[in-house]
Amino acid sequence: MKTDQKSIVIGICGGTGSGKTTLAKRLYDALDGNALLIGMDCYYKHCPEIPFEKRVKANYDHPDAFDVDLMLSQLKELKAGKSVTHPTYDFSTYLRKDEWKKVQPKPVIIIEGILLFAVPEIVDELDIKIYVDTDADVRILRRIMRDVNERGRSLESVVSQYLETAKPMHEYFIEPSKRCADIIVPEGGRNEVAFDMIAGAIRRKIKN
Amino acid sequence: MKTDQKSIVIGICGGTGSGKTTLAKRLYDALDGNALLIGMDCYYKHCPEIPFEKRVKANYDHPDAFDVDLMLSQLKELKAGKSVTHPTYDFSTYLRKDEWKKVQPKPVIIIEGILLFAVPEIVDELDIKIYVDTDADVRILRRIMRDVNERGRSLESVVSQYLETAKPMHEYFIEPSKRCADIIVPEGGRNEVAFDMIAGAIRRKIKN
Repeated sequence: MKTDQKSIVIGICGGTGSGKTTLAKRLYDALDGNALLIGMDCYYKHCPEIPFEKRVKANYDHPDAFDVDLMLSQLKELKAGKSVTHPTYDFSTYLRKDEWKKVQPKPVIIIEGILLFAVPEIVDELDIKIYVDTDADVRILRRIMRDVNERGRSLESVVSQYLETAKPMHEYFIEPSKRCADIIVPEGGRNEVAFDMIAGAIRRKIKN
Repeated sequence: MKTDQKSIVIGICGGTGSGKTTLAKRLYDALDGNALLIGMDCYYKHCPEIPFEKRVKANYDHPDAFDVDLMLSQLKELKAGKSVTHPTYDFSTYLRKDEWKKVQPKPVIIIEGILLFAVPEIVDELDIKIYVDTDADVRILRRIMRDVNERGRSLESVVSQYLETAKPMHEYFIEPSKRCADIIVPEGGRNEVAFDMIAGAIRRKIKN
């Protein structure tokens, strides 16, 4: 942690459906107002000029799908103790929403996303790197349930997106990015021993 | 942790050369006299009736190579707050040494070994399960350095033992046993973020 840094940054990475968002939310809740939680998904690039039918088929599991420059600059602002207004994303239109969200810096910034560890400039900004590791079959089942029930997608579109981009990109970018983790949490968001260990470590850090 | 239990038990597992012993020793040192450290290697079966030439070629990477009954009963004694006298092992003769070692129970019992998580009855006795995960090429290099320099073995014997038993047994028993870990520590004993997290969690547990 750099000496002029006002917040510590926790990065939580893992494949689709791994439980990383559950872990991130539980940590956020456990830190009693001391944390800010941002999903990397907020920083998906905004491409309204591309027609919907083409946007649907784009590769959202590649680091290039993200506006890394914006994400990096906002992360640095937050670390320096400044508020930022970050974009928000609509998974049904595959576009940025109109409303951006102003957030205040907090002692702990939790950032989570599938490709967080695949972007070296982002990795450099993370003080604790946690990779959530869950079997691929469990992950795809969770993704199906979420995308069909919460994001209004058809089962067929989820399966084809998974096989055409999510799975190969996972194997190409996400799985190897596990190497840069400080700790790996098996079986995602409901691993109590790991949760207590991480929450305790963060609490100790913000106390000091 | 059971209510009548006097000590918490930390299990550290991982392949040969993964750095699990380094992590175990560092935790032991960090706990300022509150910990007892036992290597699973102490519990290798004692087979003096088998001639040396045959003992050398036995499979020491299979759960059956360990006296699990003795290990389990001594672990339960220690957890219950009783001292035990455990065997010690000589890696150059592949035999138990004559002297056994009397150890006192401590608030934290650290036990480490390659096949710790491959024996379900042992796993049931562990309160925190840590798997140290290191690339196979790094692990074999460390094993060569250790076995040749510290255990008086020839390079040829290390290589043949590795290819004939250590590697297949790793893939069969050790790698899959990672599943039961609470946390996975990449790159072994010199991972500072993971070390601080684990040491902090144990200190918190013995304080309560």
